Amino acid sequence: MSELTVAFAADAASSVAGLKESIDTVWIVTAAALVFFMQSGFALLESGMSRAKNAVNVLMKNYLDVCIGSLVFWVIGYGLLFGDNLSGFFGTTHFFLNNHNDMDYSLLLFQTMFAATAVTIVSGAMAERTRFHAYLVGAVVISGFIYPIFGSWVWGSLYEGKGWLAELGFIDFAGSTVVHSVGGWVALAGIIVLGPRLGKISPTGEIRHIQGHNLTLVALGGLILWLGWFGFNGGSTVAADTSIGLIILNTHLAASSGAVGALLASLIARKPILITNTVNGSLGGLVGITAGCATMDPLYAMLTGLIAGIVVIVSSKILEQMKLDDVVGAVAVHGFAGAWGTLAAGIFLKGDMFNPVIIVTQFVGIAVAFVWAFSTAYIMYKLIDKTIGLRASTIDEQQGLDYSEHYEIGYPEFQSEQIHKGK
Amino acid sequence: MSELTVAFAADAASSVAGLKESIDTVWIVTAAALVFFMQSGFALLESGMSRAKNAVNVLMKNYLDVCIGSLVFWVIGYGLLFGDNLSGFFGTTHFFLNNHNDMDYSLLLFQTMFAATAVTIVSGAMAERTRFHAYLVGAVVISGFIYPIFGSWVWGSLYEGKGWLAELGFIDFAGSTVVHSVGGWVALAGIIVLGPRLGKISPTGEIRHIQGHNLTLVALGGLILWLGWFGFNGGSTVAADTSIGLIILNTHLAASSGAVGALLASLIARKPILITNTVNGSLGGLVGITAGCATMDPLYAMLTGLIAGIVVIVSSKILEQMKLDDVVGAVAVHGFAGAWGTLAAGIFLKGDMFNPVIIVTQFVGIAVAFVWAFSTAYIMYKLIDKTIGLRASTIDEQQGLDYSEHYEIGYPEFQSEQIHKGK
Amino acid sequence: MSELTVAFAADAASSVAGLKESIDTVWIVTAAALVFFMQSGFALLESGMSRAKNAVNVLMKNYLDVCIGSLVFWVIGYGLLFGDNLSGFFGTTHFFLNNHNDMDYSLLLFQTMFAATAVTIVSGAMAERTRFHAYLVGAVVISGFIYPIFGSWVWGSLYEGKGWLAELGFIDFAGSTVVHSVGGWVALAGIIVLGPRLGKISPTGEIRHIQGHNLTLVALGGLILWLGWFGFNGGSTVAADTSIGLIILNTHLAASSGAVGALLASLIARKPILITNTVNGSLGGLVGITAGCATMDPLYAMLTGLIAGIVVIVSSKILEQMKLDDVVGAVAVHGFAGAWGTLAAGIFLKGDMFNPVIIVTQFVGIAVAFVWAFSTAYIMYKLIDKTIGLRASTIDEQQGLDYSEHYEIGYPEFQSEQIHKGK
Repeated sequence: MSELTVAFAADAASSVAGLKESIDTVWIVTAAALVFFMQSGFALLESGMSRAKNAVNVLMKNYLDVCIGSLVFWVIGYGLLFGDNLSGFFGTTHFFLNNHNDMDYSLLLFQTMFAATAVTIVSGAMAERTRFHAYLVGAVVISGFIYPIFGSWVWGSLYEGKGWLAELGFIDFAGSTVVHSVGGWVALAGIIVLGPRLGKISPTGEIRHIQGHNLTLVALGGLILWLGWFGFNGGSTVAADTSIGLIILNTHLAASSGAVGALLASLIARKPILITNTVNGSLGGLVGITAGCATMDPLYAMLTGLIAGIVVIVSSKILEQMKLDDVVGAVAVHGFAGAWGTLAAGIFLKGDMFNPVIIVTQFVGIAVAFVWAFSTAYIMYKLIDKTIGLRASTIDEQQGLDYSEHYEIGYPEFQSEQIHKGK
Repeated sequence: MSELTVAFAADAASSVAGLKESIDTVWIVTAAALVFFMQSGFALLESGMSRAKNAVNVLMKNYLDVCIGSLVFWVIGYGLLFGDNLSGFFGTTHFFLNNHNDMDYSLLLFQTMFAATAVTIVSGAMAERTRFHAYLVGAVVISGFIYPIFGSWVWGSLYEGKGWLAELGFIDFAGSTVVHSVGGWVALAGIIVLGPRLGKISPTGEIRHIQGHNLTLVALGGLILWLGWFGFNGGSTVAADTSIGLIILNTHLAASSGAVGALLASLIARKPILITNTVNGSLGGLVGITAGCATMDPLYAMLTGLIAGIVVIVSSKILEQMKLDDVVGAVAVHGFAGAWGTLAAGIFLKGDMFNPVIIVTQFVGIAVAFVWAFSTAYIMYKLIDKTIGLRASTIDEQQGLDYSEHYEIGYPEFQSEQIHKGK
Repeated sequence: MSELTVAFAADAASSVAGLKESIDTVWIVTAAALVFFMQSGFALLESGMSRAKNAVNVLMKNYLDVCIGSLVFWVIGYGLLFGDNLSGFFGTTHFFLNNHNDMDYSLLLFQTMFAATAVTIVSGAMAERTRFHAYLVGAVVISGFIYPIFGSWVWGSLYEGKGWLAELGFIDFAGSTVVHSVGGWVALAGIIVLGPRLGKISPTGEIRHIQGHNLTLVALGGLILWLGWFGFNGGSTVAADTSIGLIILNTHLAASSGAVGALLASLIARKPILITNTVNGSLGGLVGITAGCATMDPLYAMLTGLIAGIVVIVSSKILEQMKLDDVVGAVAVHGFAGAWGTLAAGIFLKGDMFNPVIIVTQFVGIAVAFVWAFSTAYIMYKLIDKTIGLRASTIDEQQGLDYSEHYEIGYPEFQSEQIHKGK
């Protein structure tokens, strides 16, 4: 080869490498934007399923989740999760990313949106009765400790070292367990510490249904979450790989069949087909496919989603029977459907289906997530409750947290006089 | 050339080809996400234009459209539309895509979102009086038969063979006819079979205006549809071509001038400038430019949209005068503006404007679409009506379909007592 | 080198160049779509902060802003801003772009979305009392004259020549000043000419707080604006550069810390933590980081946002004390936070921090923007007021502009009888 040819070859190779970085960046930031948009979905879904007197409070929790969660994750969470992880139990570098390279910034951006999602799952379950400041303290601990530590066991490190669950072969591509079940189990701890809303359980022990104030917002929130999930799962390649076609197709089919699963469960139980259940069914499908979306054929993605939709309806019912008051069904959708989906990722693993070793490993990961997230969250919420107080006062809860915490009313021209005056 | 050089050359070529696939995939899935978001737009627009007592029902139809439509399209629709098409009349391969290659999955994903759009156009026109289960049966037939069969005549096949309308030279880049007019004519058949809502026509034959319950949702829905259309038209390249700049610019200009067209029509008719008409005008512009967005200069895109906006206002008025009750104006927006836009794609074809042969071919395609979609849909809705019943009972319609079909109320804290009790 | 090798080399180079254009196009149109979506954010935020009787009017202004602004910018604005600019004071080519090349169309698309943003900033400040037709005349002048002329001083030309402020070294990457402060100062002129809403100032001179009708829409609007800003700032590279990771990360951190800044300001002032302030704080962070997002480390982005959030709260308060009635706080968010952010872009410039020459240059640009935008807008609104009349009549304002201007009611089933009848 002539020298000129060599020079040209090197040039072309570097151009191609540069283009690869560009296109990866475009995809990562696009996916990050989609995941960020999920915050709107959560805000609408949770607000819509709450009563009007708590609408502002729910929205504020979601809004500040992102703000505070993102800052905390930048300062400490990203390093714990993705930094050099020689022990296998937590990262020790890449805190407070500053003066760094472009690709690390893109990864931090994408992962920040994930962390914000994990945090926000909790707010809906605990809605309508949690004190604002107490809630925010919880959000800091989740984004800076509970979520990143567990995440580092499965996804760490992006740089050096590997998490201990990853070493075992635990599969969780985009976080059915790492994000969703962890969020769900934290929420479970939260609602146990909090207790049910006033009026949810009658003095004679009957369980009452408390209707959300705006089901249009619930449907819109569900569709936005669905949309955002294309970035959540598709972006977890953190590269512009052609496999994102399959990943997002699987995501979409599982969401579709999740809604159908919820619908079938209602039909079989001879119950009305509720929009709240339909939306939660599709979200269950989305949570369920998150672990295995990159390693399943579409047929199994559809099955995973279908069963996830049923899991959501059944586990919601069981939790309600246990007198656990989860305003939006977050424990069922994120906790239980996440556990099922993580299992399904093992069962339906392309090229190695029904392998008992893999399935057992998945069980181990699911169980570890439950123990870690539930117990740390339980201790945290108990501590918060003993110190600054987790639950709003009875009078504030009756009046609605919008007025008592924010001095703002969501719909001042529409809400009734009584609500304004808190009587 | 030395062997080394040849090896390097092959390497670089394969890298470049790989990058091309990556970037195409990124664009296709991004566009698919945008098209999916249109479902939110439809849901809000249709719900907002309906009365509060039917809000949940409208949303549920939109939500399950996507779920059921997507599954049906995966199983049968995609194969009929895009599979090997040796006859020119329908595809015969690629059903139930599973264990396939990445690019096919991306294409299926994108096309699934299109199919879901075609299905959902119908729900708004037929709102407030169609039984839920009957509606879903219709959705299955549209996504699994009416839409894909016609589509295969124009867009089939992605693999082998070519549709008969495509052979004639019929131009419909992103589906002014294939998606929108087909949806519009199905909706027309639906509202004819259904008849108008109770109270729409007074006993003395006067036509009453029934106001939608939330015009904020209408405006938001319109803007979301507009946004989604950037993916609808821009993604129809199914490749990351630089021409998407022109395509989306044309789309945006046509939407803008469509609203202006509706506004001018109102000014000329000395009628108030309604937000519902303005939104429908811009949607008419979007529908209109869909056929020709890739083959027109911006000036003509603007003109196409402007006229489409006027077409929407005028045809809405005519349909209303004919006592056809289209709750959201879908027949005008998708049917008539789609027909106009398909014609415009022929008239303003860059490099061959005002060619009578092309214009006649466009007419043929428009007419075939009408005959196919209207007649199959008419038969289908008649059959549904005779068997399971298409129209809700009078008492259910009065009470609102939210309560009668779903046992859920959209806004339980705001709706009046009468609505709750259905009296 | 053999001839074959040379041919291959040329081929590979052209493929690589082609791919680069493709990926740039994908990013530019994706970013343009995100910026377009900001229109939904503005519409919801402004409508939610207004009273229900003006909801449709606010939405219509936003909707037609985009339509008319986009057409005007295509015809004249783009040429003035980005056309050949030999004088340094305005562009003289590229009007009415038609029959052009793909990349120019992509740039025009992206820049059209920017222009629409500049226009729409104004509508919220002047809400609830501005006549519809008068408002639209203003929109034409902003998109066709005020914004593009100033823009050409900083960003012109994309083709030949350079704006005079750019020659001085003025830094404004994505438009803290060019878009946001200009919009904010136009809004300031508008509200001075208009005067406060009826009832805002009591006969004894007390300032009353007038509550917005739907705070859920405010929160959703805020989140959508935040999302759209990823395209606004990230797309301002107008290329698929890897630096968009840093740019969007900075954008996100500044938004997060902006909300925290507003929260801290409220805590320090011992005021309740309002959702309206929180949302405006994050928007202030976004406006603030817009100038320097590409040239700051994340730490300084966070600081810029934090201070911007405080600037918003303090300047809102001052404006209110001056009896200037800005319905949504646009002057504070876009004007003042924009000015601060432009200054911050100089102060925290990576590699050359605290350089007094740079800081002085930034001051010059900020001052020039104020003088240009405020004075041209003041003259314009005065002229409009003297000719066609800027302010709605007292009776129309009391009744609400929805009814008086559009003969449509936003929420006919929910609004009270009095509003319907305008009494």
